[in-house]
Amino acid sequence: MPRTKGDHEARRRDVSEAVWRVLAAHGFGGLTLRAVAAELDATTGLLTHYFPAKRDLLAHALDLLEQRTSARPRPAGGDGLSAVRTALLGILPLTAEATASNRIWVSSWDTALADPAVSANHARMYAQSRDRLRDLVATAQRLGELPAGDPARIAEGAQSFVLGLVVQALLNPTAFPPDRQAGLLDDYLAALASAPPSPR
Amino acid sequence: MPRTKGDHEARRRDVSEAVWRVLAAHGFGGLTLRAVAAELDATTGLLTHYFPAKRDLLAHALDLLEQRTSARPRPAGGDGLSAVRTALLGILPLTAEATASNRIWVSSWDTALADPAVSANHARMYAQSRDRLRDLVATAQRLGELPAGDPARIAEGAQSFVLGLVVQALLNPTAFPPDRQAGLLDDYLAALASAPPSPR
Repeated sequence: MPRTKGDHEARRRDVSEAVWRVLAAHGFGGLTLRAVAAELDATTGLLTHYFPAKRDLLAHALDLLEQRTSARPRPAGGDGLSAVRTALLGILPLTAEATASNRIWVSSWDTALADPAVSANHARMYAQSRDRLRDLVATAQRLGELPAGDPARIAEGAQSFVLGLVVQALLNPTAFPPDRQAGLLDDYLAALASAPPSPR
Repeated sequence: MPRTKGDHEARRRDVSEAVWRVLAAHGFGGLTLRAVAAELDATTGLLTHYFPAKRDLLAHALDLLEQRTSARPRPAGGDGLSAVRTALLGILPLTAEATASNRIWVSSWDTALADPAVSANHARMYAQSRDRLRDLVATAQRLGELPAGDPARIAEGAQSFVLGLVVQALLNPTAFPPDRQAGLLDDYLAALASAPPSPR
């Protein structure tokens, strides 16, 4: 029977799933055609059909990271400071899925810092994420729940706080279980809410 | 002329310098015997004398990262909140040397997350760093410059903030030049100083 377009797409999905599992287990440092082939129980020969060169595998992995991150369900969190809190909680590794995704993000930084094109792409994605956060901060300011000041600058600070907490929690999950992460975020937001107006 | 102990030690230093330069340029993802040999203008054969296996090279690189980090001059910053600020500024990539060191740290996280022994070692080093910060925070609290609350918990938050800012600044140095980094840190500390007492 001839193979259909559906077969082909299903196969592509299997390959993508295998790439994701390799990333979650071994990071970008462990991403090789051989590791993906083992995960798929396939030959590396089959994989060179999808990824003629290591660079193609890397590009696919980075696309996957971006797609899966933007497809991740973002719980809506009302308005104002509560929406800021929900958005930041949604980044933290509080679930197994968020832990895997963050582990892949953290691992991608080494690749990004070694490759200006990847680095520029990462800078763009983090800037988009800060822009979304800035809009939530601005709403919280209008509602009087956060002090005046440049909302973009407040978003930069909040994103920094959360990314650093992600790193700590991944490297030391015993010291930073989910309730500790959420508690530290709440401390951060309480301090932000009581802060003097920041410079514009 | 017979080679002396001094020659031997000088050679080891050259090898360590080459490992460091490879890490600064290519991260742990680019750390190979071949890259170190090229940097040294030596053969990989010579290097297998120092590093019989890839694992030995990695262990040396991690030792080097720890040694160089603890040997980095830490500017003294008076007492209280000013000492907290100085300690946190000392982590940020504000100079070329601090940028190289941070780039290597960030790159080491992928290796750490893929290897439980490295991960445990990283967790220990970050815990030490938080302990030092906790003592500075406690002094600032005694001086009335920071609100009451568990100083260890405040140190966890501050370390998270700074590590995340390091990541942002490395990935996007245009958006986070040194004065922006210092400004964001000062916003963070101003918020912390005006925060309600945090839970114990």
